[in-house]
Amino acid sequence: MTGMDRPPAYDIHPGNVTDKVIASFTMKTAREKQLLASLVSHLHGFARENRLTHEEWAKAVGFLFRCGEISNEKRDEFMLLSDVLGLSSFVDMTDAPEGATEGSVLGPFYASDSPERPVGADLRPGGEGEPVLVRGRVLDAAGKPISGAMIDMWQTAENGLYATQDEALPDQAFRCKMRCDDAAGFSFVTVMPGPYKVPDDGPVGDLLHAGGRTAWRPAHFHFMILAPGHRALTTEIFFEGDPYLGTDAVFGVRKSLIVAPQEERGQKLVDLTFRLVPAALSDAA
Amino acid sequence: MTGMDRPPAYDIHPGNVTDKVIASFTMKTAREKQLLASLVSHLHGFARENRLTHEEWAKAVGFLFRCGEISNEKRDEFMLLSDVLGLSSFVDMTDAPEGATEGSVLGPFYASDSPERPVGADLRPGGEGEPVLVRGRVLDAAGKPISGAMIDMWQTAENGLYATQDEALPDQAFRCKMRCDDAAGFSFVTVMPGPYKVPDDGPVGDLLHAGGRTAWRPAHFHFMILAPGHRALTTEIFFEGDPYLGTDAVFGVRKSLIVAPQEERGQKLVDLTFRLVPAALSDAA
Repeated sequence: MTGMDRPPAYDIHPGNVTDKVIASFTMKTAREKQLLASLVSHLHGFARENRLTHEEWAKAVGFLFRCGEISNEKRDEFMLLSDVLGLSSFVDMTDAPEGATEGSVLGPFYASDSPERPVGADLRPGGEGEPVLVRGRVLDAAGKPISGAMIDMWQTAENGLYATQDEALPDQAFRCKMRCDDAAGFSFVTVMPGPYKVPDDGPVGDLLHAGGRTAWRPAHFHFMILAPGHRALTTEIFFEGDPYLGTDAVFGVRKSLIVAPQEERGQKLVDLTFRLVPAALSDAA
Repeated sequence: MTGMDRPPAYDIHPGNVTDKVIASFTMKTAREKQLLASLVSHLHGFARENRLTHEEWAKAVGFLFRCGEISNEKRDEFMLLSDVLGLSSFVDMTDAPEGATEGSVLGPFYASDSPERPVGADLRPGGEGEPVLVRGRVLDAAGKPISGAMIDMWQTAENGLYATQDEALPDQAFRCKMRCDDAAGFSFVTVMPGPYKVPDDGPVGDLLHAGGRTAWRPAHFHFMILAPGHRALTTEIFFEGDPYLGTDAVFGVRKSLIVAPQEERGQKLVDLTFRLVPAALSDAA
């Protein structure tokens, strides 16, 4: 068939529209073309397999519109949607290098402006709340300390609110950046975080409620670990016995990320080891 | 396996997470459950088949966030996204009853407050512009006029702008509701609409540009046809020779919806026949 007698694009029926839409995109790279083609195939496949009605389609488009309406600089309903549908966790698990600590959801509460604090810092405003010592090290795949590692951590207070959400707290409480010491060690004093509900007053909350699901997340520390020459790690640390471990609204819990706090000289202690892999290796994994 | 020794939900890996997410939704109806399960399968399938990276996933979530940012009461970027990905047309075609005039995209410019005008009305403000007489009838599947039929039509002016977009035009120009006469006939005088670009200054426009696609749509009349006891029809009428017929940005053109304007007593004439099917039949189709 030559270009001259190629059927015009308006000769469209359910059997050829998916191919025509895919063909309409050129895209600059093979990867972009692949992603677009796959996206269109899955979207149309979803409509085809379910014989999606106009009414259902309009509801779905309206749902996304409402997600947009409730989103703002501090709230990303689309990220939350990805989280509660397990897509974020799926990508966390599949785009993960062998040999590194398992990753977990970044979540919507990361703030990049956390203050840098020295090793040993107390993150509790006014030193209030039952202290817990968190200490750990950042190792490479061979178990050697990584020089120049840096942590960026954030957590809720005991009431389940992040400082960025709670007007009663200084904005920079319970979060910090910290350069590890020469042995790639870090430590800080904080409180145990509390469990909390993901924002459930928007369309994603409506979906959770309609689905008979809980909006609760188990308590956790968030960590982002950065080190020169190594692949960055975003993960979470959960606690044994937390009643929400099995029903995390965003599917972030991994067995290897659950720890049991210990006691040392009468103080609660959480001991952590993070493993990073070289940046180059991660692409092959 | 009993409930007691069912593995906890945090025993999650890429091989079981899709099923766990699906199982987490109960939903009230079997249809809702089916749609959710299919949606989750396709979303995860998209990520799995393409080995979606974190960076790509974050771009996709950010794309939807930007769609929300640019949307407002007068602009629905999610509807536009559905349109340019051919999803709207797919549903138009597959959720369509046998025997009726083919449907086509509603588009984002429908305004439900068009004034009711009598048969024969002139929709041109001040009677300006080259007149074209549009007339037609609304028939049932057997070819009989449907009593009580009503049309709701909207189109651009010759410059490709809808009256709702163009401050130089009265807000209600080139659109109307009209009760058909006893023979289910309607007619009005208007101008030929112009081709136009879908809004391409937002994320969907970025996608069109990145894909080497055009944002242009061929010129068209929009019609919504309503009649008691019959399934409502939303469709578009296109014109032979329009240079954009083959590359409509939203895949709305159907061969059966392209007409060739005629001449009658020195005036342009567009003669249309719309066919509706009974509301009850449409569910079985």
